[in-house]
Amino acid sequence: MSGASAADARVVAMMTSPLEPEHVERIRSAFPDRLELIYRPDLMPAIRYVADHGDPDWRRDPAQEREWHRLLHRAEILFDFPQHERYPLLDLAPKLRWVQTTSAGAGPLVKRLGLQDADLIVTTASGIHAQPLAEFVFAALLFHTKELGRLQNEQRMHQWNRFAGVELVGQTMAIIGPGRIGREIGRIARAFRMRVVAMGRDSNPTRAETLGVDRLYGRGELHEMLREADCLVVCAPLTPETEDLLGEAELAALKPGAVFVNVGRGAIVDDDALLCGLRDSRIAFAALDVFREEPLPPDSPFWDTPNVLINPHSASTVVTENAKIAELFVRNLGHYLAGELGQLAPVLDKHLLY
Amino acid sequence: MSGASAADARVVAMMTSPLEPEHVERIRSAFPDRLELIYRPDLMPAIRYVADHGDPDWRRDPAQEREWHRLLHRAEILFDFPQHERYPLLDLAPKLRWVQTTSAGAGPLVKRLGLQDADLIVTTASGIHAQPLAEFVFAALLFHTKELGRLQNEQRMHQWNRFAGVELVGQTMAIIGPGRIGREIGRIARAFRMRVVAMGRDSNPTRAETLGVDRLYGRGELHEMLREADCLVVCAPLTPETEDLLGEAELAALKPGAVFVNVGRGAIVDDDALLCGLRDSRIAFAALDVFREEPLPPDSPFWDTPNVLINPHSASTVVTENAKIAELFVRNLGHYLAGELGQLAPVLDKHLLY
Repeated sequence: MSGASAADARVVAMMTSPLEPEHVERIRSAFPDRLELIYRPDLMPAIRYVADHGDPDWRRDPAQEREWHRLLHRAEILFDFPQHERYPLLDLAPKLRWVQTTSAGAGPLVKRLGLQDADLIVTTASGIHAQPLAEFVFAALLFHTKELGRLQNEQRMHQWNRFAGVELVGQTMAIIGPGRIGREIGRIARAFRMRVVAMGRDSNPTRAETLGVDRLYGRGELHEMLREADCLVVCAPLTPETEDLLGEAELAALKPGAVFVNVGRGAIVDDDALLCGLRDSRIAFAALDVFREEPLPPDSPFWDTPNVLINPHSASTVVTENAKIAELFVRNLGHYLAGELGQLAPVLDKHLLY
Repeated sequence: MSGASAADARVVAMMTSPLEPEHVERIRSAFPDRLELIYRPDLMPAIRYVADHGDPDWRRDPAQEREWHRLLHRAEILFDFPQHERYPLLDLAPKLRWVQTTSAGAGPLVKRLGLQDADLIVTTASGIHAQPLAEFVFAALLFHTKELGRLQNEQRMHQWNRFAGVELVGQTMAIIGPGRIGREIGRIARAFRMRVVAMGRDSNPTRAETLGVDRLYGRGELHEMLREADCLVVCAPLTPETEDLLGEAELAALKPGAVFVNVGRGAIVDDDALLCGLRDSRIAFAALDVFREEPLPPDSPFWDTPNVLINPHSASTVVTENAKIAELFVRNLGHYLAGELGQLAPVLDKHLLY
């Protein structure tokens, strides 16, 4: 299964996105006799902050690009898809068998690269981001429910106004995207004694139990679910089935006063309908980590909508992220080098795109 | 066991703090033939907001006071301790057998009223406030950990700055006061995959397991616990053992960069030491629901300390509170009227004061 040259029987893996040296060393040292790890920071954008994957606007010069392509040509394994290539990936990397991505939502990229039918395994970082995303969901939900914005204002004015607040207990959280992230969010919601419902492919009581939700709605029952949602959390990947899923009619069906949290993808929800719902407070509050266009343009109306909290798509980014991704890659490398391709995980379904 | 007059065999219970009419009706209608419920809103401060217990500065005029004392004289059961009485409670209410309070922290009041050795049962509302207090603790902790204050500032400036954040997972939460409230907080912390430790009377592995904490420190090990706390939560009642528990030495022992949350009582912590720790950021953030002097004086330095979040002692107050307290009172009334005094719960230990 090795595509390495005769001179070196080691499998060639190449990093195509930057990673901190200690994590590269962790990967390299795991299988020194079996793996040749190509890591060329000089051919990649610099790391600007912990867990950064590099400036997307950075480009190689022509000499760097030739060297880059020479290396790609040798690689059987890639750590991340290379960005901004003008040629089909499998032409650039004809020996490629497996790509380990550093994000969970690699589906749209695989489609765009025309790799849906390629003989190529794609493993993602799905699951790595579940915990930090779940923490952000509850940070946002509790910020609103516990009225911390108002408390901050009253504190500024030295005002002591006692009040009766609202509780999460007994509220219904509706989750779109009951995958690893959604299940983590649902698990914590149940610890807060919330009712948890989710939308899946179909309404299946057995699967609802497996997912740990009180009810699983089918795709045809979306409006029914939205009507009872005190909090709607989108943590689905962008797929043909989720793109534009939440339009004017869906947001109008939401229970009045609901909270909306999107940690999935911006293109799942209609921006104008969301802004409209927020302006007349039918949607009481929205926390948005993802947008149709990123970075969010400086003139986007979301910035100044008072009942919106914006996260610059960093809710999933934590200082421990790359250590976790490196461990995942090492675990998968072990399986790959042992010929246990069926053990690679989590594998992207290149047609379902998640 | 009834102390009612010959003309009316019903037990006399009297409300001494205001409660919404629907909850009074719920109590009155539960035992119409066994209970005479005295509820005189004209002799009590008005309710200013849902779950308010009335303006503490309100006073009865002399005629109202005479009527009030005439009624107290008949009462065998009180719903709340009457406030601002100039005579010993058992002189005013010689038939009194049982007081149901509307707060959890009734201990100091029982001591002040000189009732520690009285033949009187005191049941509290302990447990009623566990869930809303736990929600506030995590609202505050996640507000800090997920940097929502900075995100709000960058949003105001339309700035999209991606960053790597911090996670709760793996952090250690230390709880002072592992009662009903502390256990609820610890349970949710574990759902967030935090390590949970607590300080109890002694370090007992069996009791640690019962409480659901990873380690239970004894009182003599407080500094040891503080050194490993990423987040210190105080949810203890004010007792001789907790008063001034956290002084300069204790706050200096806290792990640098720790978060401090106080939903217990203000007099448990030294204000100057806390302010000092916050100013030099050894304590990264504090969320305070309780203070030595309440309302917090307008010139208190806490108001303008930037890494402090103030809640006007309302973290436990939720719109459903009085319904829950009314149900608790009804449940206890059922036991009392059936002579099942051992079933009354939760009973205040008049010497431990919680």
